[in-house]
Amino acid sequence: MSREAISHETGAIYEFTPELDAIATVQSGAQVTIETRDSLDGAVQSDADVLESVPEEVNAATGPIALEEAEPGDVLRVEIEAIRVAEDRGRVITIDGFGLLDGHEDIESPRSRTTPVEDGGETIVFDDLEIPVEPVIGTIGVAPEADSYTTLVPHDHGGNLDTTDVTAGNAIYFPVFQSGAMLAMGDCKAAMADGEMCGTGSEIACEIDVTLEVIDGETIDVDIERPLVETPDAWKTVASAETLEEACELANLDAIDLLVADHGVDETDAYMLSSLVGGLEISQVVDPLVTVRNAVPKAYLSSPF
Amino acid sequence: MSREAISHETGAIYEFTPELDAIATVQSGAQVTIETRDSLDGAVQSDADVLESVPEEVNAATGPIALEEAEPGDVLRVEIEAIRVAEDRGRVITIDGFGLLDGHEDIESPRSRTTPVEDGGETIVFDDLEIPVEPVIGTIGVAPEADSYTTLVPHDHGGNLDTTDVTAGNAIYFPVFQSGAMLAMGDCKAAMADGEMCGTGSEIACEIDVTLEVIDGETIDVDIERPLVETPDAWKTVASAETLEEACELANLDAIDLLVADHGVDETDAYMLSSLVGGLEISQVVDPLVTVRNAVPKAYLSSPF
Repeated sequence: MSREAISHETGAIYEFTPELDAIATVQSGAQVTIETRDSLDGAVQSDADVLESVPEEVNAATGPIALEEAEPGDVLRVEIEAIRVAEDRGRVITIDGFGLLDGHEDIESPRSRTTPVEDGGETIVFDDLEIPVEPVIGTIGVAPEADSYTTLVPHDHGGNLDTTDVTAGNAIYFPVFQSGAMLAMGDCKAAMADGEMCGTGSEIACEIDVTLEVIDGETIDVDIERPLVETPDAWKTVASAETLEEACELANLDAIDLLVADHGVDETDAYMLSSLVGGLEISQVVDPLVTVRNAVPKAYLSSPF
Repeated sequence: MSREAISHETGAIYEFTPELDAIATVQSGAQVTIETRDSLDGAVQSDADVLESVPEEVNAATGPIALEEAEPGDVLRVEIEAIRVAEDRGRVITIDGFGLLDGHEDIESPRSRTTPVEDGGETIVFDDLEIPVEPVIGTIGVAPEADSYTTLVPHDHGGNLDTTDVTAGNAIYFPVFQSGAMLAMGDCKAAMADGEMCGTGSEIACEIDVTLEVIDGETIDVDIERPLVETPDAWKTVASAETLEEACELANLDAIDLLVADHGVDETDAYMLSSLVGGLEISQVVDPLVTVRNAVPKAYLSSPF
C-alpha cells in the first residue's frame, strides 16, 4: 500500500506551541512516512565541524500533522513500525555548556565525531567499533496545553524526550491538548545510550513509518497526562522535570494511577506493587528538563485503552 | 562438594567500619553459602506488624568474612551462583519518613503486606498477583577505607546498594580497603523493582551461594574505586551519592575510566562512546544516598581483570 510521505522540507518546527498550523491533515488510522533531518540541521558533516554553543534552533521536528478526529481529552497513539537512517553518517558531539560531564577537566568541548553508516544502514562506526543501528526518535510531541516549549525541552506534551524506547516495534501515546493534536517529530539517533550523557546520540536524518490513531477520551478510565510508551512486554510512563528525583516521582505516580485503575487497589498497594516489578529507568540527564520512565511489565498491567 | 555455611546467627553487622572482626576466614577461591535474615530482623510476620519509623538497626549483613590473601589495593570478586529464599513469606512495607512518595497525600504509612512464597520458592503473591521470585542481595560490601557507614547507607565500599543486578548469575567486584576485605551481606529481596520506590522490595531471609576470589591489585590497569557488576552481557559501574545527578556523574566517570583503559582513547571519546551504547540505570532512589549504574555492553568493553 502507498503511504503518504511528509517531509521536513514541507515544514518543521523548533517550538511546540498551543497554536500550531498543520502542514498536513490525516485521518485516524493513517499510515504515513515522516522524513526528518538531523538535529543539527546538517551543520556537522566532518570532525572539523564543531559547535561552540547550542544553536538557537535545534531538533527540527517534521510537522505538525493534524489528526482530523483529535480533540482535547483524547489520546493520540503513534505506532512506530520502522525507522530507517536516511544519510551516510551520523554525528556525536560535545558542546561547551551542555552534557552530564560539562566542565569536567578531562572532557573536551567542542568536539565532533562523525559515525559513518555501513552495512547498508545496519551499522555505524565509532573509533574502530561497529555499533548496530537501533534508531531512536529523540523529539516527538503534540501541541501543549498552555505554555510553549522549544524542541530542546521535554515536558507533558512530549518534545525532546530522548527516550530509547521511542523506537521501531513500540508505540507512544500522548494526551491531546489541542484540536488536531498537532504531531511533530525529529531529532533521530542511529544509536543512543540511556542517559545520552555527552548530550547527543549519533544524530542522523531518518525516515519513520508510523500509524496514527486517535483514541476517544471518553473510552479511557484513567487520565493520561503525560507520554506513555508501550513495548511488546511493558507499559512505561514517561515524565520530565527539573531533577531526576522529581521526574521519578511523577513517573511513579503515573504508574500508580494505571495500577489503581487496572486492579482496583488503593494508591499505597499500587505503590508497593510498583516497588516489586519493572521499575524506574533513565531516559536522558542532559536536557533543560530531565526524563525518567517507570516500566510496569504487561504481566501486571492491562492496556488502559 | 561441600560448601562452608556461614550463618547470620554466628555474626551479622549493622555498620560497615574500617576495623571489623571476622566471624570466618576463607581463602581465595572459597565456595561458601551465606545465610541471611530478613532486613527487618523478623519484625513483620503479618500485615498487622507495622513499623512506625525506620528501626535503628536494619539490613543485618552476615559476616564479616575475611579473605586470607586480600590486602588494600586488591579487588574482591563475589560470584553469585544461587540465591534461595529461606522462609515462607516476604514482606513489603511503607514507613513514615521513607520512600520516594513519602508524604504524598494518597500514600499511607505505616503499612505492611506480607507476600507468601508459593510454588516451592518460585513465586510470591501480592494482592492476587503471582510474581516470580528473582532474589536480589540488597546490602553487600566490604570494610570501608576511613569512614563508617550503617547498613542503611550505600557508598564506595558497597553497603545498601539495592541493585537488582546483584543476583544469581552475576558477579560483583569491590575495592579492598582493609586487610582481609571483610565481606558481609544481607537484606535480600524475593523481588524488587529498579528504584525500590516504596522503600523495600519483598524482604526475605535467603541462602546465598557465592565463590570468593581475590584479584591482585598489581595485575589491574585501572583503579577500581567503587563497586562494579558483571552480568553475562555487560559491565556496570555502580555509584552512590546525595542526588541522582551526582550518582550519574560518578557512574559515568567510572565507565569512562574503563573505556579509556580498554581502548586507549581519551576521556572525551570514551564519554561519547558511553553516550551511544548501554547507558545509565537506576538502582534505588530511597536510601540516604541514592544509587545509579552505568552499563557498558561487553561487546564494547573487555574485562578490566
